[in-house]
Amino acid sequence: MHVQTLEFWFEFASSYSYLSVMRIEALAREAGVTLQWRPFLLGPVFLSLGWNDSPFNIYPPKGRYMWRDLARLAARYGLPLQVPSRFPRNGLLAARVALTGVEEGWIGEFSRAVMTANFAEDREISDPAVIRSILEGLRLDADAILERAHSPEIKETLRRQTERAGEIGLFGAPSFITPDGELFWGNDRLEDALAWVVARPA
Amino acid sequence: MHVQTLEFWFEFASSYSYLSVMRIEALAREAGVTLQWRPFLLGPVFLSLGWNDSPFNIYPPKGRYMWRDLARLAARYGLPLQVPSRFPRNGLLAARVALTGVEEGWIGEFSRAVMTANFAEDREISDPAVIRSILEGLRLDADAILERAHSPEIKETLRRQTERAGEIGLFGAPSFITPDGELFWGNDRLEDALAWVVARPA
Repeated sequence: MHVQTLEFWFEFASSYSYLSVMRIEALAREAGVTLQWRPFLLGPVFLSLGWNDSPFNIYPPKGRYMWRDLARLAARYGLPLQVPSRFPRNGLLAARVALTGVEEGWIGEFSRAVMTANFAEDREISDPAVIRSILEGLRLDADAILERAHSPEIKETLRRQTERAGEIGLFGAPSFITPDGELFWGNDRLEDALAWVVARPA
Repeated sequence: MHVQTLEFWFEFASSYSYLSVMRIEALAREAGVTLQWRPFLLGPVFLSLGWNDSPFNIYPPKGRYMWRDLARLAARYGLPLQVPSRFPRNGLLAARVALTGVEEGWIGEFSRAVMTANFAEDREISDPAVIRSILEGLRLDADAILERAHSPEIKETLRRQTERAGEIGLFGAPSFITPDGELFWGNDRLEDALAWVVARPA
């Protein structure tokens, strides 16, 4: 049996990414699909589309709808939600730290904790003290991880990953890419993306 | 037992409206929900958001994704799809004609025929001859209907309906509004909107 994989592109500032980050690991396990976590920054992608802020802020009717839709979906999934007092928050530090957790295998747990801080506890995820407390809560070596998160290698990895997002046509988050190149956009499509992978063994 | 209703706001030019127009009548019947058909024009709504064209044309990555997503969804629903050689087409005449069919009860059938012409047969739905042939195919009195469609009353009804769309915060189509004022946006949310209505008897 071949191992099926799915690329999961997400941004810690993104409201719909919150829903997918919280749900994806259990769903992927159930489907027998291995995840490739791809944190990236939406800011540069949005800039290339002419947006210097979240479209949910630029277009107020879209923003009002998004928060209501998010509340309905969070209730359905049984996820807590507190509309952040600041949106979008800067996800740069969280993304760099997350990347250091890919090889060590704690990126899922860390990402859920950061998303919970941002969207359920209204905490400032761009504050290094908040990220540190999250790492310590997971019993990880916060000093070593934060140092590594600021290394040129990790900075470069995130920069390249964000560039790559634009190159492969991403325009929002969460996005899912299958091994045969299908793009699925939005938390709505998480189940579809997993089903696509399962139906087409590589 | 009270009759449950759902407002269905759609635009004949809109690709995701195609999917919902084709599906909604059967799903609403099954759910015991009465539909209030609300054809409107997206153009003025988009203009108020600063878009002078479909966002799928303004933002090419979104457009490329939309056509692929639409193809996957059409295949799932068993609906034919031929990417229109012109997008978006002008849905003004079709919307006016559709409004004359609300009271007479043929708006659903007519809307499906127009959407099929636009998205499955690549026909020019802004051409009066195409609309006439659709009416004739439904064994309707095309002359009388087209005359009524050009009456000041129908023109004013569509104008007011489009204004209302902006006032109630619509920013795209299809959109669904429940009797208790919940807005659901997108073909993805059709089933959710019906379930919302059924779960909350007025």
